[in-house]
Amino acid sequence: MNPLTLRQASGIVDASLAHAHELGLRPLAVTVLDAGGNPLVVKREETAGILRPQIAHAKAWGCLGTGQGGAAGARHANRDPAFFAALATISEGRIAASKGGALIRDGEGALLGAIGVSGDRPDNDEAAAVFGVHKEGLAADVG
Amino acid sequence: MNPLTLRQASGIVDASLAHAHELGLRPLAVTVLDAGGNPLVVKREETAGILRPQIAHAKAWGCLGTGQGGAAGARHANRDPAFFAALATISEGRIAASKGGALIRDGEGALLGAIGVSGDRPDNDEAAAVFGVHKEGLAADVG
Amino acid sequence: MNPLTLRQASGIVDASLAHAHELGLRPLAVTVLDAGGNPLVVKREETAGILRPQIAHAKAWGCLGTGQGGAAGARHANRDPAFFAALATISEGRIAASKGGALIRDGEGALLGAIGVSGDRPDNDEAAAVFGVHKEGLAADVG
Amino acid sequence: MNPLTLRQASGIVDASLAHAHELGLRPLAVTVLDAGGNPLVVKREETAGILRPQIAHAKAWGCLGTGQGGAAGARHANRDPAFFAALATISEGRIAASKGGALIRDGEGALLGAIGVSGDRPDNDEAAAVFGVHKEGLAADVG
Repeated sequence: MNPLTLRQASGIVDASLAHAHELGLRPLAVTVLDAGGNPLVVKREETAGILRPQIAHAKAWGCLGTGQGGAAGARHANRDPAFFAALATISEGRIAASKGGALIRDGEGALLGAIGVSGDRPDNDEAAAVFGVHKEGLAADVG
Repeated sequence: MNPLTLRQASGIVDASLAHAHELGLRPLAVTVLDAGGNPLVVKREETAGILRPQIAHAKAWGCLGTGQGGAAGARHANRDPAFFAALATISEGRIAASKGGALIRDGEGALLGAIGVSGDRPDNDEAAAVFGVHKEGLAADVG
Repeated sequence: MNPLTLRQASGIVDASLAHAHELGLRPLAVTVLDAGGNPLVVKREETAGILRPQIAHAKAWGCLGTGQGGAAGARHANRDPAFFAALATISEGRIAASKGGALIRDGEGALLGAIGVSGDRPDNDEAAAVFGVHKEGLAADVG
Repeated sequence: MNPLTLRQASGIVDASLAHAHELGLRPLAVTVLDAGGNPLVVKREETAGILRPQIAHAKAWGCLGTGQGGAAGARHANRDPAFFAALATISEGRIAASKGGALIRDGEGALLGAIGVSGDRPDNDEAAAVFGVHKEGLAADVG
């Protein structure tokens, strides 16, 4: 397993943003973290809301925090809202269990990092995230 | 009453993890706190989510915080979610009222500390926690 | 005055990193903020320290916070350390008065944003920051 | 490069504590983090101060945050106290630039994680840290 590089993370983010433009999505922030939860690339379109980078970060970090993709996290949060409310505080605001977050894995399934996208509807954020990860030849685990 | 030692806490954590492996549980974090709520041992399996230590801590600390085991805490949280939401903030994120936390008591029922386990389903986390405490010859009070 | 775009910010960050490679600098993080102090682009080389993005952010944000470049901030901090210690707390950790931060201005001197670079010695961080801003045809105000 | 495992981290921590006992050191806390800054093992002797785990964490995390060992961090902090005071706030209390922290590297120099030891004098904390890392066949980079 090789750690995710800045070059790969940049490729993922740029492909996600390019796909979002093709789909006509609203302005986005996209973040790619390494497996330890530390940022490699953050990009916010200049007309996106100013909290979008933190939301994108929390979608990505939340996947790493609990070891599951954003779609799985969103399902679990719906089933157990009190626990996920507690997680928000326990994590000091670093978790948003929502579509738009995905674990990034290599061909053998090893964990390389996570992506978070925020700005449009959760389904569209997820589509942009998954597209970017695939474009770089990696797997997007949404759970 | 003798305070819980690092040697005992290490024995509890290692027995919990060994039992989790036998059961085939997902990667875990296990924490043992002394009666003052301060950590003696934290272990996170290298493939467990990076928030798992804090969740395990909050399960254990929450037991000491309210003086009841995690199963009792989970029941109370279900009955009174608004109060437990307030507790999350009051405790500055140190409480997760969930199965997987237990008070650790000696043979006379004196409080020695608490254990928290996070990574699998709450029932399985609790099974690993209770096993580890029993293995060290102590009582696990899940409430 | 047109606000700084994501496209411009990306150009600045990539030029700074390319220049740092030419100079053989240590692994860096580079951040460009808009005039409101909100991130447009953050990049961290995969071998840079995990606090580097926050330090780069604080160098850039600190320039916007006090309206002066990082070199001027560093001089002021040396003359009045107690005041800058207070600023660290007042800003909730968003200020690092150090070389490597610069205000970004257009040809008329209008404020467009700020850049922060962290990872090598302050003089080298500043050289990378200034190079990137100039490459995009803008002015780097280090104070 | 393989990530640091819980088994290796446990070996390092136990060897550090055993060496500290041989040297007759005061009660310690020892922490090993993975390369992303997330804990694998924390142990606090039951008579060690209750802040010792957080200090050990900050010594280890600080090494990863700036990419240098604790001895190098301590020298830099002595030369530029205002910047390191700012780092304490920027990092939200996750940095203690002090002897007793070391980067953990494999035989090729690849970064695997960090260790932090707190409880005795900085030189003694460092000796315990280095001994534990060497015992596991890895390199301790104190800077």
